[in-house]
Amino acid sequence: MLSNKSIIFKAVPDGYPVAGEHMELVTKEIDIENFSLADGDILVKNHYMSLDPYMRGKMRHSYVKYFTPAYEIGQVLDGLGTAIVVKSNNKKYQVGDYYIGLIGWEEYSHIPANVVSASFEILAKAISKSKVPESYFLGLLGMPGMSDYVVLNKIGQPKKGETIFITAASGAVGQVVGQIAKIKGLRVIGSAGDYSKIKYLEELKFDEAFNYKTCNTDEKLKELCPNGIDIYFDNVGGEILDIVLNHLNNFARVVACGMISQYNTNDHYGVKNIFQVIKKCLLIQGFIVTDHLQEIESFQKEKGECKLKYKEDIVEGIQNAPQAFVNIFTGKNFGKLIVKIC
Amino acid sequence: MLSNKSIIFKAVPDGYPVAGEHMELVTKEIDIENFSLADGDILVKNHYMSLDPYMRGKMRHSYVKYFTPAYEIGQVLDGLGTAIVVKSNNKKYQVGDYYIGLIGWEEYSHIPANVVSASFEILAKAISKSKVPESYFLGLLGMPGMSDYVVLNKIGQPKKGETIFITAASGAVGQVVGQIAKIKGLRVIGSAGDYSKIKYLEELKFDEAFNYKTCNTDEKLKELCPNGIDIYFDNVGGEILDIVLNHLNNFARVVACGMISQYNTNDHYGVKNIFQVIKKCLLIQGFIVTDHLQEIESFQKEKGECKLKYKEDIVEGIQNAPQAFVNIFTGKNFGKLIVKIC
Repeated sequence: MLSNKSIIFKAVPDGYPVAGEHMELVTKEIDIENFSLADGDILVKNHYMSLDPYMRGKMRHSYVKYFTPAYEIGQVLDGLGTAIVVKSNNKKYQVGDYYIGLIGWEEYSHIPANVVSASFEILAKAISKSKVPESYFLGLLGMPGMSDYVVLNKIGQPKKGETIFITAASGAVGQVVGQIAKIKGLRVIGSAGDYSKIKYLEELKFDEAFNYKTCNTDEKLKELCPNGIDIYFDNVGGEILDIVLNHLNNFARVVACGMISQYNTNDHYGVKNIFQVIKKCLLIQGFIVTDHLQEIESFQKEKGECKLKYKEDIVEGIQNAPQAFVNIFTGKNFGKLIVKIC
Repeated sequence: MLSNKSIIFKAVPDGYPVAGEHMELVTKEIDIENFSLADGDILVKNHYMSLDPYMRGKMRHSYVKYFTPAYEIGQVLDGLGTAIVVKSNNKKYQVGDYYIGLIGWEEYSHIPANVVSASFEILAKAISKSKVPESYFLGLLGMPGMSDYVVLNKIGQPKKGETIFITAASGAVGQVVGQIAKIKGLRVIGSAGDYSKIKYLEELKFDEAFNYKTCNTDEKLKELCPNGIDIYFDNVGGEILDIVLNHLNNFARVVACGMISQYNTNDHYGVKNIFQVIKKCLLIQGFIVTDHLQEIESFQKEKGECKLKYKEDIVEGIQNAPQAFVNIFTGKNFGKLIVKIC
């Protein structure tokens, strides 16, 4: 018998989630030797797990329908993780193989056959051959990085010489988007919420970066983007989106990647400048990265050929996952947030 | 010497434009025989002119940059019209030929070479061969109709069995979009602002139609679209857009055709549900129909093969154009608004 620390979804938060109140640590036991696996199932020992803002959207009542399923009260939370197979009833996975896919917020996870089949085999195989840290496969080399690559191209339609503005620019997505945009010959402007993040954006060779907490975004965009913005990579939504709409050029594209300012409130910000969609002939588009999985190989290839910097914020121990998750929404984390489970 | 009644742009309106105050009738004189035309220019006698909400966006100060150029104070207003050539220095046009393109809000217009070259020769040639009324080439068979066809397909991406909701559904664009959507096998719901318009939508075989002035749009959409909306063809923006965002299905498309509720105010409605773009993975897109002119022939062909109903609201005399234009914004017109000039 092994102990299996897990985080369960305890209650639906109304505003900001609170560790202990909405997410609770419980310690279960697991008997690997006698664990019974149905056909196609595997049992894994979890290594790293990604914490992302989208998870807040799953912390809702199940009768509210979105494209992501709601977390179930009393059940272990889940997310994307890397793991090692410790028992297998699936001929594609042997004990000792890497696994990347949905895992629980826990030390050991039972992965049913249908989840195994939706996992990222190509990525998992790449881990054992790779010299980069395993956790990068949950970020730069995994879904978030791919998300940057695919949607910057598909929705953003970047053209050399254009200007892109990125919010939460030092975050999991922003830092990669900014660097890819530089490679594509764009002028890259980023905003973030503290001095060390701005310094990091300068290291990444962003053309301009500013702290939205200490200056006026509208004034700053006027100053830094006198010829307007062609692509807005939106991670925050709300008031900043409203301001940016006024700075967009005709035919600009808004990549709606996240609206973190709106996830923990029911009193949503009213975006007044949405009429600019008509006046400036704009495109605003959301996306799901899993719709683009077929492009993962070309992405891996192109990504492998360029040298990108990449900052992670690694929290140790599954018991610290709830507070780390809460911190995302107050800007306390810096870089891609990863939980090192064991 | 002939008299040439014209409407000039007198002042930039702050809210709703007012006939006489922002648009003024002046009577000029024109001497056709001695009128001097530069190379490529033509002189036309105007027949019909289209009045459209987008014109309000051009009634602004010229320092406000949008993709459409601003009207110039003191100059004759312009719009899309049909006309007959009365003098020509352009080898493509003979006296007596039809012309479709930009004309002034006036009886006779001097069309400079660059405007002639941006005109719709294919449409103009089609008038003389056609049995349908000339004015239809400004609507059903012209730019607005084409706009419906192109953007419903390109942005809306309609799939058989889906549900489309259309606001201002009896208007120039809505009535055509609704009929095309029916042909494509969609369930079509429309709203409009009076009883006779709703009756007309029933004649057009809309599946459902309701008067947004006498019922609650949110309640009505709940009742009429229990399975949600897949395409929203938005002609009004503002509060209705906000409500509709809550009724959209995952991956729905918003064709941002117009936001007539927002054109005559600087106090724009704050759209709170724009975060649904992230949660439901939505697409919101504006467009300019002139970007799709290369498709005019295939459009004409497909349009010719089906029998669409089409309602026009024809106002006689250029002197009545300003008040007719103002009436668009209060829902007083019914169908495609056309001025019969002579």
